Amino acid sequence: MVSKKTIASILDDYEEIVIATVCSHSSLQIFHGARQEGFRTLGIAIGKRPRFYDAFPLAKPDDFLIVDSYADIVDQADDLVSRQVVTVPHGSFVEYMGSDIFAKLRIPTFGNREVLRWESDREKQREWLTSAGVPMPDKIEHPKDIDRPVFVKYYGAKGGRGSFIAKNYEDFKESIQPGMKYAIQEYVVGTRYYMHYFYSPLATTGYRLSRGALEMLGVDRRDEANIDEMYKLGAQEALRKMGLLPTFVVTGNMPVVLRESLLPIAFDMGERVVERSLELFGGMIGPFCLETIVTDKLAFKVFEISTRIVAGTNLFIAGSPYSDLTEPGMSTGRRIAREIRIGQKQGRLADILS
Amino acid sequence: MVSKKTIASILDDYEEIVIATVCSHSSLQIFHGARQEGFRTLGIAIGKRPRFYDAFPLAKPDDFLIVDSYADIVDQADDLVSRQVVTVPHGSFVEYMGSDIFAKLRIPTFGNREVLRWESDREKQREWLTSAGVPMPDKIEHPKDIDRPVFVKYYGAKGGRGSFIAKNYEDFKESIQPGMKYAIQEYVVGTRYYMHYFYSPLATTGYRLSRGALEMLGVDRRDEANIDEMYKLGAQEALRKMGLLPTFVVTGNMPVVLRESLLPIAFDMGERVVERSLELFGGMIGPFCLETIVTDKLAFKVFEISTRIVAGTNLFIAGSPYSDLTEPGMSTGRRIAREIRIGQKQGRLADILS
Amino acid sequence: MVSKKTIASILDDYEEIVIATVCSHSSLQIFHGARQEGFRTLGIAIGKRPRFYDAFPLAKPDDFLIVDSYADIVDQADDLVSRQVVTVPHGSFVEYMGSDIFAKLRIPTFGNREVLRWESDREKQREWLTSAGVPMPDKIEHPKDIDRPVFVKYYGAKGGRGSFIAKNYEDFKESIQPGMKYAIQEYVVGTRYYMHYFYSPLATTGYRLSRGALEMLGVDRRDEANIDEMYKLGAQEALRKMGLLPTFVVTGNMPVVLRESLLPIAFDMGERVVERSLELFGGMIGPFCLETIVTDKLAFKVFEISTRIVAGTNLFIAGSPYSDLTEPGMSTGRRIAREIRIGQKQGRLADILS
Repeated sequence: MVSKKTIASILDDYEEIVIATVCSHSSLQIFHGARQEGFRTLGIAIGKRPRFYDAFPLAKPDDFLIVDSYADIVDQADDLVSRQVVTVPHGSFVEYMGSDIFAKLRIPTFGNREVLRWESDREKQREWLTSAGVPMPDKIEHPKDIDRPVFVKYYGAKGGRGSFIAKNYEDFKESIQPGMKYAIQEYVVGTRYYMHYFYSPLATTGYRLSRGALEMLGVDRRDEANIDEMYKLGAQEALRKMGLLPTFVVTGNMPVVLRESLLPIAFDMGERVVERSLELFGGMIGPFCLETIVTDKLAFKVFEISTRIVAGTNLFIAGSPYSDLTEPGMSTGRRIAREIRIGQKQGRLADILS
Repeated sequence: MVSKKTIASILDDYEEIVIATVCSHSSLQIFHGARQEGFRTLGIAIGKRPRFYDAFPLAKPDDFLIVDSYADIVDQADDLVSRQVVTVPHGSFVEYMGSDIFAKLRIPTFGNREVLRWESDREKQREWLTSAGVPMPDKIEHPKDIDRPVFVKYYGAKGGRGSFIAKNYEDFKESIQPGMKYAIQEYVVGTRYYMHYFYSPLATTGYRLSRGALEMLGVDRRDEANIDEMYKLGAQEALRKMGLLPTFVVTGNMPVVLRESLLPIAFDMGERVVERSLELFGGMIGPFCLETIVTDKLAFKVFEISTRIVAGTNLFIAGSPYSDLTEPGMSTGRRIAREIRIGQKQGRLADILS
Repeated sequence: MVSKKTIASILDDYEEIVIATVCSHSSLQIFHGARQEGFRTLGIAIGKRPRFYDAFPLAKPDDFLIVDSYADIVDQADDLVSRQVVTVPHGSFVEYMGSDIFAKLRIPTFGNREVLRWESDREKQREWLTSAGVPMPDKIEHPKDIDRPVFVKYYGAKGGRGSFIAKNYEDFKESIQPGMKYAIQEYVVGTRYYMHYFYSPLATTGYRLSRGALEMLGVDRRDEANIDEMYKLGAQEALRKMGLLPTFVVTGNMPVVLRESLLPIAFDMGERVVERSLELFGGMIGPFCLETIVTDKLAFKVFEISTRIVAGTNLFIAGSPYSDLTEPGMSTGRRIAREIRIGQKQGRLADILS
């Protein structure tokens, strides 16, 4: 991990920050938000300049850095620092670069990179969330213990690929790929809400935590191929015989709002997760997402946490029914840029970058 | 029921109205809309001041009234009247307080409380809607007459809890809870549209009715646990064997728009329901929702009416594709506040409050 | 087909254009957009003036033309031309009038009517798209060749009526209606994205094509009765025995966003379709929609193209997460009007009208 001291000394020389990210995932939103807050922007892409930004003039980065591979960004670190770059990580950024390389990248990065250690390992993630008092689906230790529907997830699975549902041990044996590390969770039946929080250590008003404040910027539902539409073909049991198995690859997102009486619980969970992160590793800073199921008892079960901007926020480029009650037109991308702007003004960049 | 005279005499002394509601359901929207129209606001909560409003500064009420139980609001009526309070009822407000107590509350309330008598009893609701000429799913008088899929709803069921689908009499017997009063309706297969209307007795332009005018402010789909995602686990027939039965508890909402050629029919239905309400009980005033299924013959079936603001309007804090064509940024919460403002200016508050 | 020369000579006399369309489908949006760009508007309706526009003052046409049947519009062509009318076609307009009559209508019309020949015939549509290099579901030549789930669509099927899924030849024989012309496509399992493009031959900036530029204004999912909710009743196999078969009639639309990494592919497909249209018939101008499925391999399959404004754009009256990155508040209806305004200013109306 790059030391706090290294980053602080780099920041000493920054005057006019350029916001950079990898050209994927939520980059349109990040660049758009950065521009709204008056920052220059830099798009990092593989191989060649992506053309699709030409169609979105309000989100097109001012400049591009074209690299042969994401690992090459490491070699360009000094150059990027001389350009006064702050990177904004998103899921694909960390995944493509590799979290080890990302952790060591000598470029100031939005958020606290210490969070990686607690997020990437499912055991540690569970430890963090459950010790915070957040309800999770039960964990099943051994496949033979499967006594109800379960969801099996491979470690480091990308975009939902490879996960599967098993209703019993037989199903499990049929679907499991040998040699892969996996985690088995109870499959909770209910409706899904991916809640977009923002934790600001700099805020002094709002929903106050021990330090800073917590915001909610939106809620989405992920849209997954092929589980979300395969029911149209017939019963899963019949499709299985045809060799058609459910898969869980995220292809897009849909907007939702949560029953209002669940909001106090949602804030309580968000608060617990942040407070516990402050104790464990100095705090998860900026956007995060609790990926939840709400049961018919109106109880949340959190099956995963994402500790940076999630793609579902792309729905809310012009604001959400939640951010409309805070500041109309506020996207998560813009909120990140706003936080950097505030940090700069308060001379507290080192508290939000790592 | 509080008499019109009592309310009118209370209103005589009102100069600067404070808009109050119970802190749940659609309260963020109601407070936000009231503030947009320049009203002071009061949040009524049980036990302690809810913290989550701190995260939504544009919707946070100016003051709170903390009570031990909703019934206690009755004891505070004189105090609330001296504060010049007008309450805006929503589903949870009426449900938590009890419709009997709500009916007698000596505080001016938005809308016509006479509607309660026609809404709370499923027989009278059906009488109202069918005599208005609105198509409803067939009613099945006796469980033994079940000759097609049906939906069974308990009287006063809260948020969809306890309802069930039965494909035949066997299913019915298996699922019914003894001692509960229920209604059996044909289960209509199609897609659901919850249409958010607003009837203004004060309006002189727009979609004119015999008195006032009708607006459409949005359409949503309710998101219900566990029926809306349980298909992911497999065929219902197989899940039933595992003891997993469908439930219908509303957990959130999703935005939709209706095929445009259905709009004339939607307005015709809204008009009929309002005109009939004027005949039956002096009119249903303000927001209401027809909860519909559209079949593959493009025919509506109305399975329920809500006679006040529904939670699905929470999607449209900053306007909907429908209200954008009337007045951009108009939410149902704001529309209520606007109506009160207009009533105040025209000296006609007694026509919209009860 | 009306000749280019005829239209050009009509346009010579136009000074103050009136935008007209048939009162259905996406007419609220088209009128609203036209008004935003400062045009006068004319609504064409059958039998009597539709009342529902009264509820939407920002979308209400300035005038109405009431006809007995859509074919009557032909007789009114001279009068409409003398009023300086430009029609904006939508799906219902073309369907109700009949594409043969529409093709010959002697009124300037937005877009290139030559596209009709390539859209209405499923064979030619497939030829256009596949020769453009756009991936489509496999075509099954003979019912006996059905070796996997397929989707069977009748020629000229209206709003999805009559289509059906067959898992094998037996299913096909059971569902097919004798004497109807049909096309059989592989049924691709995945999630659906209806992408709203806009091709401007006049644009000189943005996502540049060989001539003009390509935009993306939104993405929706269609909501179909009864396929989208019939799973609630139980397994399709069981419902079939009760005589309940899936149907695919569009009743509304829901907003979605696409995984950002799919956008470059989406633009590439849009570009190919437009470039090929320029070669084949002088170009498809204005709004079009690729109706796609995204598989769990993150591959698109385009199962249909709509070559004019689709009803899913009605979600985005006030802009979409995509148009917010181009010009906030830009709907497809407004974009059409904007294009006409630009064509007028540049003296190039003949390039975008036919």
